[in-house]
Amino acid sequence: MKKILLIPDSYKGTMSSREICAIMEKSIHSFFPDTEVVSIPVADGGEGSVDSFLSAVGGDKVELTVKGPYFEDIRSFYGRIHDSIAVVEMAAAAGLPLVEDHKHAEQTTTYGVGQLIEHAARAGCKKIIVGLGGSATNDGGAGAAAALGICFKNAEGKSFIPVGGTLDQIVSIDASGISPYLAGVEVVTMCDIDNLLCGPQGASAVFGPQKGADEDMVKLLDANLAHLAEIVKRDLGKDVANLKGAGAAGGMGAGMVAFFGSKLQMGIETVLDTVGFDSLLKGADLVFSGEGKIDFQSLCGKVIIGVAHRAKKKNVPLIAVVGDIGNQIEEVYKEGVNAVFSINRVAVPFTEARLRSKSDLRLTMDSIMRLLTLKNRSDCNLLK
Amino acid sequence: MKKILLIPDSYKGTMSSREICAIMEKSIHSFFPDTEVVSIPVADGGEGSVDSFLSAVGGDKVELTVKGPYFEDIRSFYGRIHDSIAVVEMAAAAGLPLVEDHKHAEQTTTYGVGQLIEHAARAGCKKIIVGLGGSATNDGGAGAAAALGICFKNAEGKSFIPVGGTLDQIVSIDASGISPYLAGVEVVTMCDIDNLLCGPQGASAVFGPQKGADEDMVKLLDANLAHLAEIVKRDLGKDVANLKGAGAAGGMGAGMVAFFGSKLQMGIETVLDTVGFDSLLKGADLVFSGEGKIDFQSLCGKVIIGVAHRAKKKNVPLIAVVGDIGNQIEEVYKEGVNAVFSINRVAVPFTEARLRSKSDLRLTMDSIMRLLTLKNRSDCNLLK
Repeated sequence: MKKILLIPDSYKGTMSSREICAIMEKSIHSFFPDTEVVSIPVADGGEGSVDSFLSAVGGDKVELTVKGPYFEDIRSFYGRIHDSIAVVEMAAAAGLPLVEDHKHAEQTTTYGVGQLIEHAARAGCKKIIVGLGGSATNDGGAGAAAALGICFKNAEGKSFIPVGGTLDQIVSIDASGISPYLAGVEVVTMCDIDNLLCGPQGASAVFGPQKGADEDMVKLLDANLAHLAEIVKRDLGKDVANLKGAGAAGGMGAGMVAFFGSKLQMGIETVLDTVGFDSLLKGADLVFSGEGKIDFQSLCGKVIIGVAHRAKKKNVPLIAVVGDIGNQIEEVYKEGVNAVFSINRVAVPFTEARLRSKSDLRLTMDSIMRLLTLKNRSDCNLLK
Repeated sequence: MKKILLIPDSYKGTMSSREICAIMEKSIHSFFPDTEVVSIPVADGGEGSVDSFLSAVGGDKVELTVKGPYFEDIRSFYGRIHDSIAVVEMAAAAGLPLVEDHKHAEQTTTYGVGQLIEHAARAGCKKIIVGLGGSATNDGGAGAAAALGICFKNAEGKSFIPVGGTLDQIVSIDASGISPYLAGVEVVTMCDIDNLLCGPQGASAVFGPQKGADEDMVKLLDANLAHLAEIVKRDLGKDVANLKGAGAAGGMGAGMVAFFGSKLQMGIETVLDTVGFDSLLKGADLVFSGEGKIDFQSLCGKVIIGVAHRAKKKNVPLIAVVGDIGNQIEEVYKEGVNAVFSINRVAVPFTEARLRSKSDLRLTMDSIMRLLTLKNRSDCNLLK
């Protein structure tokens, strides 16, 4: 074999995408030492996304000081690849780990995320990818907007930086002062969920509690985001109230669309575009992808299926190596997956299985490779 | 692919060898409809062995009336294949299921087993395969010997048919009256265990309890078998006291050697010889075997390794599809196994896994077949 592409999702709770790529590559090279292996750890937009992009396509980590969730100064970073593309992970300036046990969704801001975007734009990046997820905020992206010069005024006509608990004080929004550096910059938002901004499946109701909001606070935060949506619609002419994904990361999905004209895109599609997956497929013999579990839901735009669609177009076989194989997986074959293997090698519950996942993945990859090596036996007429 | 051989052991407690063959064949034909599939369900000598042989190589079931464990008349059977080969399963005339709850290892006889052997010999069979296992007896094969004309005399010089509890009354053994039909007949005994006749790992101590023997009875049965061994050595010149496998099936292993000059052979070797496995390998592209679990112990002469040695000689690849994959399986690759796949597809305990084993086996076989079909794509340079 000449070339194999590895592009697995993480196995939630067991192995990261990068760990999986490393194990797969070791296995392949122990059977096909001369095969070129291209590892593409998948970023989902959450914590670690920048590192994933950098290890997939190379580039530099840009470090700088910005405002943290409580407007405190923190050291943060973003990734720059191909010089002109920036990758910002929201978690790097507004992530839950930054607030530790001090969780107050009504007080936290995405201001620092805006500063990261502004720095990248000022540095000349023409495409800025912003990964949502793992946020400690519920400000609908208002903080990030403020950092980029969008002005929020209250009843006294004074401009202020709204947080989740004060969005209701917004009387008007003026985007005329937005940073000139954003002009001509394509902003892409990685967003794998399709929650609406408000309501029972909205940002506050679904994700508020894990950010420290009790029942009453959830109601307040939900009402505040609804208020923001109204003003946004009136002053900016953008309707984010019924936008799928608007509810991601405390309403940051809505904010990215409303304030920066960004599109919301599946993480995997963003990765595939950014790494130039279609051209990587040229000359590839095989693609390996994987997830913690594959089942009918995997059809809802998860990693394996996203990869499968691209591989199928170029007619490159795709093998999925997964944790569990759910029922009704027949669909995935139609989508372009050629074969699916589970790494489970003994009948034990997940609590035990997860502890052995690395060695089980290695053994499963080895078995697949062993099967593929058979063809190399000139004395064996297998597959003829 | 032109030809595939299937020769799996049963997955103890989940699927029989025949069920596994049927599922494997369905899977293969759904991807390679024109491939010739040869199914060889493996017999271990116990209950069902005759059916396994008949479905593997064809032949007739010969039914007749013989003596059961308590000398009662029962309908029994043996298999006849290739006209000249008989397959007798001991369980058909001396098996535990025949005595139900009436278990008394000291009273039961293998007389009926001898009758089955005698009938086959009289019918002209030149090779008689006797499968041990699942017996309700502990008579060291004395009953079977008596049925074939071997004479056991007691202190009063009267001939009698010893049972487990009366072996100590044997004063002499005279084999001169053995059935003339046995002359020139090769008797092969299928025996997968290597317990000695007596002692802590002997027939009585290890298997006596499941045949209704309490602690005292085990001591008595053990002493009686030791006595039998002494007389056998003195009168027949055969030393079975230190013979591995002699303790199988209540000492039937010892009896087969002592009275019928049989050799004790692994079940799988007997099957491989009888079905002419080496010639079946000619023109075969692939062999599938399997067991409930493969691990280092599988090296101790279990089915997969037995098959692997033959397949390796003829350079035909062997894929093992198993329930669980244990640790340290690297050894099996040296023995001739090319790849090992577990049917486990979800992380659940065995109690749950066993219930889904059939569909999990089918899915695993399908995935292997899907991998093999890739080569058939002229537009795909996989494996080039």
